[in-house]
Amino acid sequence: MFAIKYELIKKDLKTKARLGVIHTPHGDIETPVFMPVGTQATVKTMTPEELKDIGAKIILSNTYHLYLRPGHNLIKKAGGLHKFMNWDRAILTDSGGFQVFSLGPLRKITEEGVEFRSHLDGSKHFLTPEKVIEIENALGADIIMSFDECAPYPAEYDYVKKSMELTLQWAKRGKIAHKNIEKQALFGIIQGGTYKDLRKECTLRLVDMDFPGYSIGGLSVGEPKDIMYDILDYTTEYMPEDKPRYLMGVGSPDDLIEGVIRGVDMFDCVLPTRIARNGTVFTSKGKLVVRNAAYAEDFLPLDEECSCYTCKNYSRAYIRHLFKSNEILAARLATIHNLHFLIKLMEDVRQAIKEDRLLEFKSKFFKKYGYKEEC
Amino acid sequence: MFAIKYELIKKDLKTKARLGVIHTPHGDIETPVFMPVGTQATVKTMTPEELKDIGAKIILSNTYHLYLRPGHNLIKKAGGLHKFMNWDRAILTDSGGFQVFSLGPLRKITEEGVEFRSHLDGSKHFLTPEKVIEIENALGADIIMSFDECAPYPAEYDYVKKSMELTLQWAKRGKIAHKNIEKQALFGIIQGGTYKDLRKECTLRLVDMDFPGYSIGGLSVGEPKDIMYDILDYTTEYMPEDKPRYLMGVGSPDDLIEGVIRGVDMFDCVLPTRIARNGTVFTSKGKLVVRNAAYAEDFLPLDEECSCYTCKNYSRAYIRHLFKSNEILAARLATIHNLHFLIKLMEDVRQAIKEDRLLEFKSKFFKKYGYKEEC
Repeated sequence: MFAIKYELIKKDLKTKARLGVIHTPHGDIETPVFMPVGTQATVKTMTPEELKDIGAKIILSNTYHLYLRPGHNLIKKAGGLHKFMNWDRAILTDSGGFQVFSLGPLRKITEEGVEFRSHLDGSKHFLTPEKVIEIENALGADIIMSFDECAPYPAEYDYVKKSMELTLQWAKRGKIAHKNIEKQALFGIIQGGTYKDLRKECTLRLVDMDFPGYSIGGLSVGEPKDIMYDILDYTTEYMPEDKPRYLMGVGSPDDLIEGVIRGVDMFDCVLPTRIARNGTVFTSKGKLVVRNAAYAEDFLPLDEECSCYTCKNYSRAYIRHLFKSNEILAARLATIHNLHFLIKLMEDVRQAIKEDRLLEFKSKFFKKYGYKEEC
Repeated sequence: MFAIKYELIKKDLKTKARLGVIHTPHGDIETPVFMPVGTQATVKTMTPEELKDIGAKIILSNTYHLYLRPGHNLIKKAGGLHKFMNWDRAILTDSGGFQVFSLGPLRKITEEGVEFRSHLDGSKHFLTPEKVIEIENALGADIIMSFDECAPYPAEYDYVKKSMELTLQWAKRGKIAHKNIEKQALFGIIQGGTYKDLRKECTLRLVDMDFPGYSIGGLSVGEPKDIMYDILDYTTEYMPEDKPRYLMGVGSPDDLIEGVIRGVDMFDCVLPTRIARNGTVFTSKGKLVVRNAAYAEDFLPLDEECSCYTCKNYSRAYIRHLFKSNEILAARLATIHNLHFLIKLMEDVRQAIKEDRLLEFKSKFFKKYGYKEEC
């Protein structure tokens, strides 16, 4: 038995969208879902209670960061990541693959694993697929990721093929190393860049290994959006219906909707929290840079259609004042709003699937919101 | 009729401590009370709901800062400071006197007022006692302060005497300029440095002007603690029993208790919030620097005897990790704890007065806490 179970509730008639529930040891997650990112065992600026208030059922945390600081053994001693950070709902940890590879020339890849230097103190480290699973077992998240190599864009076919082979080998080794099957579900990660035959091959070979869920990695790494959507659409064709599908690192409003339509169940992205801290917020009419002078005497809420704590209680003028004054409450209020926006968007998307009106919802949403986001 | 009314509930038998209630247009405040400081229309890192959770009934905000940014006229347009910052309990604004004078050589004092340069952009400003009241009337706090000159320590007798005369003149001019008597209570500020005759004279002449409350300024500006306590003790002798007494800018645990014993009702200080953001917290056993390596694997709460949100849910190890990782939640959790500590301390002090055991409470508190704080 896997630690999690995906229950398919309904398939959309006009698109590949799916309504489902993921049953985890720390509660049920209705899908499609957006997962806030808590890189360093905290979703930046937020308490767990605030995350619950906006409806978050699962958050993501980063293996690479926690391994380096405070260390997985310390977190294990604390009783695991849930207890350490006071979050009793579900957690997903990535494998650190993306972080290690985005370090660039500081790392050395072999079949055995990756040697790299810490971004904190320059110290040398060696991560293998087995070591990564050991770390993730110590952290104790409900859903954990295989160690993978994330190829850049653009990249030559031969490079991406070799990289995919490595990712497949590492997935197999990680699966063998995984010690906590009944409490933590290990996902395989589909790589293959923008090459369809590689995406298909990687998907089929991973499915053959039988994971409780599958992630799609290596997208939204610089390729044009139409290529990303095309590869995504093609890849989900080969993914099993009875397992959750997670598109890694993608989370702008347009990508969420386009991803759902192509059959994705889970998303995460630092975008909403990062832009919030810089004073940019999502609204039903598109992005708004609340730091701008235009809002100095604007006493409307960030989004007139929003029901979040921030919009119920504060004006653009006040929030702008907080940003100009470098007050921490500015980042808090904007973060609450942006995360609420995406979580509410996914609630609306699920309701639209339920009521067979997803495409109408999409066109109505984009008519107001506009359609040019970057993550 | 003044905007506020002080009700004396009980006088301690062995000390000058008083139990009272200040009735304000935004609720009742049990005294003695510690007021958290929200310099820029926000108590750093906190929401109003969090302040209410820890029992804050009144907060302080700074006229000088709000005048410069975002401007008192903007706040007036927003419906006043309460509405602007979403705080429906009482607010006290200082007069900016302390801030203007601590700017040092950048300012020029005349009988008419003070010319100074903004710490934000270097722009030139001129504040008079009338202008300060105009600003405070626009902000709309329940309790407002007269413009005063805060003499440094040490200072020559003649300088302090002249400065006190100016403060008295300005108090009179501010009283005449005050437009909103039924909603905002204007306090006079007692100056006079460490010279007892000047303190006495200043107090008596201010009392003669009949203010709804009196502040003691110019203490805790560098003088030794025994001198501060002595001057304080002497000054409160001449303050009327039927008006609240506010000791400005003082708020370490020992100063709070010593101040109460000398007859003070109200205190404020940036100390608890400032040291919190640097990773230092109050505990029943004295200060604790949670950033220290000693707490890396310490899974106890900040203070085992504390019932605040932070102590109920997080370990020293986790909070230290957040500080080392520069996470905003670190500052939030430490701030909640420190403000809770002082507000709870004052609750305990009030209870001790009620039960005629204030001196026993004091000696018990300091036996555990130790006795060398700085504000």
